[in-house]
Amino acid sequence: MTSGAGFTIEKVAALAEASRMTIYKWWPSKGTLAQGGYFTVVAPTLAVPDTGDIVADLTDQLVAFVHLVRDTSAGRVISQLIGQAQTRPGAGRGLPGALLCPRRALAVEILTRAMAREQLRSDVDPESVVGQLWGACYHRLLIADLPLTEDFARTLVDNLVRGLR
Amino acid sequence: MTSGAGFTIEKVAALAEASRMTIYKWWPSKGTLAQGGYFTVVAPTLAVPDTGDIVADLTDQLVAFVHLVRDTSAGRVISQLIGQAQTRPGAGRGLPGALLCPRRALAVEILTRAMAREQLRSDVDPESVVGQLWGACYHRLLIADLPLTEDFARTLVDNLVRGLR
Repeated sequence: MTSGAGFTIEKVAALAEASRMTIYKWWPSKGTLAQGGYFTVVAPTLAVPDTGDIVADLTDQLVAFVHLVRDTSAGRVISQLIGQAQTRPGAGRGLPGALLCPRRALAVEILTRAMAREQLRSDVDPESVVGQLWGACYHRLLIADLPLTEDFARTLVDNLVRGLR
Repeated sequence: MTSGAGFTIEKVAALAEASRMTIYKWWPSKGTLAQGGYFTVVAPTLAVPDTGDIVADLTDQLVAFVHLVRDTSAGRVISQLIGQAQTRPGAGRGLPGALLCPRRALAVEILTRAMAREQLRSDVDPESVVGQLWGACYHRLLIADLPLTEDFARTLVDNLVRGLR
């Protein structure tokens, strides 16, 4: 993982549309957690693939995500962020969502483009598909009694694109 | 929700294949959380629907799950169970999985039956489908910036059964 030279609490706060105070409230002594979260969760979403092949693009993104959460400290950072959010009622609850939002927006963009190109049905709800790809991976990350593998990611894309019948 | 007359820590421990000590370690002062978890998470899985229509059976089960986690205290119980598991390394990590396992086994059973009846492709991986139905709902439950609705549940089933193309 890259070092956090350009990292500030302010950047995370801006990204999450939260105050500096809220960030400190969330991680009173865990600056490194927030720092890790910023670089591992958000930075990789800056690359937007567009090969014109929706199956390849979705698979590439999802496989990269699996490797990120399985082979780097990002998995622990993300699962702890989400875990901590469950016991903090009120406004703070949306923070993991806000931090993870850029990745989700990218996936919605890829799907919307594929719908416009008639590679997917025009009545698909992109957010539901994101839940069935990334959400299914989060499920395995958080309830870890089945392995989160590259094969699993490919199966998720295949199930949805081909359909189960 | 029913009262916990027949509830014991031993039953939860047996169910989770964990020792009584482990359960207390998990919820040192939260007996009611474990109790709530037992009744809301496990008890509803006792009913096994089999109308012969895989789409109807999956939809019924998933819609019931959405109502359970949205309209009863089960949602808070489940999200806190999963949340607490993220900061407890080692053996304890599998406990939410073990508690949620009976529900997942039921879903796998429904899917396997439908494959045998040729209502679904014979090469479907049932566990991956569970992740794309229940897992996608957990994703919305835990990262709560999009609503967990009955429509969402129906869309998840429809996406998978029809396919996105």
